[in-house]
Amino acid sequence: MTNKGVLIIISGPSGSGKGTIVEKLKNNKNYALSISATTREPREYEKEGVHYFFKSKNDFKNMINNDELLEWAEFCGNFYGTPKEYVSKKINEGFNLVLEIDVQGAAKVKDIFTDAVTVFVIPPDKMELKKRLLGRGTEDENTINKRLKRACEEVELIPKYDYVVINDSIDNAVKDIESIVKVSKMCAKRYIHKINDFK
Amino acid sequence: MTNKGVLIIISGPSGSGKGTIVEKLKNNKNYALSISATTREPREYEKEGVHYFFKSKNDFKNMINNDELLEWAEFCGNFYGTPKEYVSKKINEGFNLVLEIDVQGAAKVKDIFTDAVTVFVIPPDKMELKKRLLGRGTEDENTINKRLKRACEEVELIPKYDYVVINDSIDNAVKDIESIVKVSKMCAKRYIHKINDFK
Repeated sequence: MTNKGVLIIISGPSGSGKGTIVEKLKNNKNYALSISATTREPREYEKEGVHYFFKSKNDFKNMINNDELLEWAEFCGNFYGTPKEYVSKKINEGFNLVLEIDVQGAAKVKDIFTDAVTVFVIPPDKMELKKRLLGRGTEDENTINKRLKRACEEVELIPKYDYVVINDSIDNAVKDIESIVKVSKMCAKRYIHKINDFK
Repeated sequence: MTNKGVLIIISGPSGSGKGTIVEKLKNNKNYALSISATTREPREYEKEGVHYFFKSKNDFKNMINNDELLEWAEFCGNFYGTPKEYVSKKINEGFNLVLEIDVQGAAKVKDIFTDAVTVFVIPPDKMELKKRLLGRGTEDENTINKRLKRACEEVELIPKYDYVVINDSIDNAVKDIESIVKVSKMCAKRYIHKINDFK
């Protein structure tokens, strides 16, 4: 029991830097990233079982019907979902499994994996958020303002999560998440078996 | 809100090393130890407001009646209790306040300070526990066996606590508790005010 990994769900508004944090966590050999199933066509560089599990629409619908997905959603005509089996397997192997997902998905996953730990990543303040969204340099001001408004609204989701990580530096944010995982492993319910060891 | 300290309650069976851990935590300038009120006579080296708050039986009874104690108990004809005001003051000043207390006391404190974090310290295994109890060299075998039995029974209290720290080395155990405190400060409910900062 104690050797099982932790399922860590990471959400956050656009500009919070959650994607970069998740990328960095990949460098820790005790961490694994969840791999989604999708019905969209693989891109040239994408490998089955590495970037995605590529499925036909029929297979995907079967996965839904057989309750094999923790959550799923349709986006631009394609289906995306989180296979339950992969998550269970990695956790049982001792990996801390990282799942980057939105608030609805997070709630669904936590219903099934009640020990999952949910983390909401936010930028340090509104100014910094705007700077990051502007820094991308790929969108006009109107689009940026819309994204900024939405990101600020999303901060209201804080109470839905277990923890908040303020991403003022990527390295600190990664360390914070590693600390959350370390401490989650000290939860009393993971040590019930110790009672017998002392009998 | 975010700058408030964490109230950390530490319990553990005899031989768990909890006392040594608490002593080490004193070296961290962000930590303070709870100071008990007592009706017993001060020993020569003991200072008012450092080792204890020394009280007359009358004053102590008034503290009970005025609900000024988080918990209290009678031991060998003397009263001992935890003054609420001192705990609140230190936490509000930003100190992480350490309270070494038994399971009944821990439950009472948590009823009042619902954000308090409870930690149960245990030795790595039964063999090591016996070694530690023998190592004190101050008691006969019969007494040691009684203490060992009681300590092993106390391990059953694990489910009453938030976290378990296995004290295989004092330094690691201290670091574990510091991690628990660090992570407790990332609890989402401490960041509700951030919602307004992004409005």
